Amino acid sequence: MQTELSNRLGVEHAVFGFTPFPAVAAAISRAGGFGVLGAVRYAAADELARDLEWIDRHTDGAPYGLDVVMPAKKVEGVTEADIEAMIPEGHRRFVAETLAAHRVPELPPGEASGWRITGWLEQVARAQLDVAFDFPVRLLANALGSPPADVVERAHAHGILVAALAGSPRHARHHKDAGIDIVVAQGYEAGGHTGEIATMVLTPEVVRAVDPLPVLAAGGIGTGEQIAAGLALGAQGVWLGSVWLTTEEAGLHSRRLTEKLLAAGPGDTVRSRALTGKPARQLRTAWTDAWDDPSGPDPLPMPLQGLLVAEAVSRIQKYEVEPLLGTPVGQIVGQMNAERSVRAVFDDLTRGFERAVDRINRIAGRG
Amino acid sequence: MQTELSNRLGVEHAVFGFTPFPAVAAAISRAGGFGVLGAVRYAAADELARDLEWIDRHTDGAPYGLDVVMPAKKVEGVTEADIEAMIPEGHRRFVAETLAAHRVPELPPGEASGWRITGWLEQVARAQLDVAFDFPVRLLANALGSPPADVVERAHAHGILVAALAGSPRHARHHKDAGIDIVVAQGYEAGGHTGEIATMVLTPEVVRAVDPLPVLAAGGIGTGEQIAAGLALGAQGVWLGSVWLTTEEAGLHSRRLTEKLLAAGPGDTVRSRALTGKPARQLRTAWTDAWDDPSGPDPLPMPLQGLLVAEAVSRIQKYEVEPLLGTPVGQIVGQMNAERSVRAVFDDLTRGFERAVDRINRIAGRG
Repeated sequence: MQTELSNRLGVEHAVFGFTPFPAVAAAISRAGGFGVLGAVRYAAADELARDLEWIDRHTDGAPYGLDVVMPAKKVEGVTEADIEAMIPEGHRRFVAETLAAHRVPELPPGEASGWRITGWLEQVARAQLDVAFDFPVRLLANALGSPPADVVERAHAHGILVAALAGSPRHARHHKDAGIDIVVAQGYEAGGHTGEIATMVLTPEVVRAVDPLPVLAAGGIGTGEQIAAGLALGAQGVWLGSVWLTTEEAGLHSRRLTEKLLAAGPGDTVRSRALTGKPARQLRTAWTDAWDDPSGPDPLPMPLQGLLVAEAVSRIQKYEVEPLLGTPVGQIVGQMNAERSVRAVFDDLTRGFERAVDRINRIAGRG
Repeated sequence: MQTELSNRLGVEHAVFGFTPFPAVAAAISRAGGFGVLGAVRYAAADELARDLEWIDRHTDGAPYGLDVVMPAKKVEGVTEADIEAMIPEGHRRFVAETLAAHRVPELPPGEASGWRITGWLEQVARAQLDVAFDFPVRLLANALGSPPADVVERAHAHGILVAALAGSPRHARHHKDAGIDIVVAQGYEAGGHTGEIATMVLTPEVVRAVDPLPVLAAGGIGTGEQIAAGLALGAQGVWLGSVWLTTEEAGLHSRRLTEKLLAAGPGDTVRSRALTGKPARQLRTAWTDAWDDPSGPDPLPMPLQGLLVAEAVSRIQKYEVEPLLGTPVGQIVGQMNAERSVRAVFDDLTRGFERAVDRINRIAGRG
C-alpha cells in the first residue's frame, strides 16, 4: 500500500496507527506502518520523554509520530485549579451519586487519580512539544482544531510534517489555511471525538476541500477491505485507532475492559459528551447512559467535564466496575473478536487489502 | 461493474437505483443499472399499475423492481380512520402552531392532501403487491422489516427476487431467516430510515451475518469512487437513492426544494422522527428543528406521525415555504451540485468507478 505520502515518509504501507501505548506504536512502525503515540494522557513531560526514547529504540529505525491536543486559542494564565473551580456543585453531586449507585469504592488514601487527561491544557501541550522536538519525530498530529501558527512553523523548521483531525470540510479548510501538511478526515463511526458525517461521505468531501493536501481516512477502518474502501475514496492513507486496543501489546488498565471490547457488537458504542465534554464515540455503559439521560445534568464543556470525571474514571477502572467500565472506541469494535499481536493484525490488514483489490478487479472485468 | 447478482438479474452494472419517480426508474434501467420504483406514496393501486405499465414500456426490455413497505406484523381490521383517532389533540395543535408561525396558507377548499404516505398500511401494501405481480417485476424490496412469509412465497413462485433493508446485523439475520434473497445494508449516512451504524462498518458486518446471501451497500454512495468503496467492503452491488433526486427526470413537487438540495452541504441533513415517526435522515429544516426541540412534543410512533403531518407537508410543498421545505436525503447531498440527466449521472458513476480501480491498483503496486 504505497502512496505519495507513504513514500515521502519512507514507510512500506500507508497505514497510520494511533495509540496511547508505546509498545503498540513501535510495533506498528516495525510492521511497516506509521505508529503515532497519543500524548494526551501524559501529564508529566519526563514520562513522555522516557516513552519516546523507548519507542525510538524499538522501531528498528522506522519513522514514528506524536499526537498532541494543542488548542489554537491561547488562554493566558489559566491553571488547572482555576478550571476546577468552575465546576458546579450539582455536577459533583451527580458524579458521587452515580458512583454510589454502582457501589464504586473510593481510591485508597494517598492514591492519586491515574486517569487524568490534562494534555489539552495549553501549558501541558507546550511542554509535550518541547519534548517531541528533542526526538526524530516525523509527524506531529493535532487532535482538536488547528495547531497554533508558531507550532506549525517550529515543526516545519525541524522537518516534521503536521497533521490535524477534521470532522467536516469546513474544519479541513481551516486546517489548510493554518498551513498544515496532512488532514485526517475522521468520520462519525470513529472512536473518540467525531462529528456527524460518516467516513464514506467525509473522505471525498475533505479530499476535495483541501486539494492538493493529502488526506488520511479515519473512522470505521479495521480490516484490509475497509482500507481499500478508504483509499478508493481518494485518501492517501488510512488512520486506525480502535483496532489496536485489543492487541497483545496494548496496556489497557483492566482485563475486564478487554473482554468487554472483544464481546461488543457494532451497535454497542455511543457518541456521548460523558467523558470529555465534546461528543466522543465510546463503549455504551451505565456511565454514558447516566450522562445521556435527559433527566440528569448536561455534561460540562471541555475541559471541565474531563476534570470533573477524572477521579471517577480511575475508580471505575481500578475496581473494574463492569456496568460503568468503558473506553473510547469506534463502531469497528464489533470486528475486534480476538486478542492478537500487532504484527498479526497488520498481516491481516495487508492480506485483506490484497483480497479487496482482487475482488474489485474481478468486478471491473480486469480479473 | 459485474457481480454474480448483476449477472443473475441480467444487468450491465451492479448499481441499484431507488426512486419514487417512474421516469427515473426507467432511465436507470435503460442506462444499464437496475431501477427500483418506491411504491409507498401510491395510495391508489390503479395509479401504481399505470406507472408500472409506463416503466415497462420505457426500459427497452431491461429489468426493474418495486419497493414496498410491507409490515410483517398484521393488524387485522385497522383502518386509516382508526389510526387517525389515536392522534392526541396536543400534537394536532403543535402542527397548527408550527404552520401558523411560518404563515403557511391553508389548502384551497376541496383540495385533498397530495402528500400522504399510506403504503405502510397492510391493506394498501397488499393491493400494491397484487398489482406488482401483474408485471414482470424482477425484484421486490421491502423497506421496513422482513416481508411476511406468504409474500416471499408468492414472489418466489413468480420468479421474483426478494430484498429487504437492514440497519444492523441483527435485522439482516432476521431477514435471512425469513427466506429473502438479498439484503440491502443501509448505513447511518443514508437518506430515509436509517440505523446508527455507518456504511463502512455495516456493510462487512451484514455480509458476514447473512453469508452466502448477496448484500447491497446503501448510504453515502453517490459517486463511482463510493461505489468502489462499497464493493471493496464485500457488497455484490450498491443501492443509491438520494443522487437521483436532482436529476432532470425527477419530479420533485417544488422548484425551491431542488435548489435547496443543490445548495446543501454534507452537514445539512439530520436523522429525525419528524416525518414518519421512525428515525429518517432528511434535510434539516425549521420543521425538523421544531420536532427535535426537547421543549416540544415527541414525534408519534409510525404510522401516526405520518398521518399527523401529511396535510402540513402538502401545504409546505404547495406554497414552497422555504424554512420548512425538506425531503428525505442522505449526507451525499453535499455532492449533488448540478441538475443532470440520469444518463449523465450514470456515466459519471461508471467513470468514477474506473478511476477508483486505477487508483487502487496503483497503490497496490499493480499499476
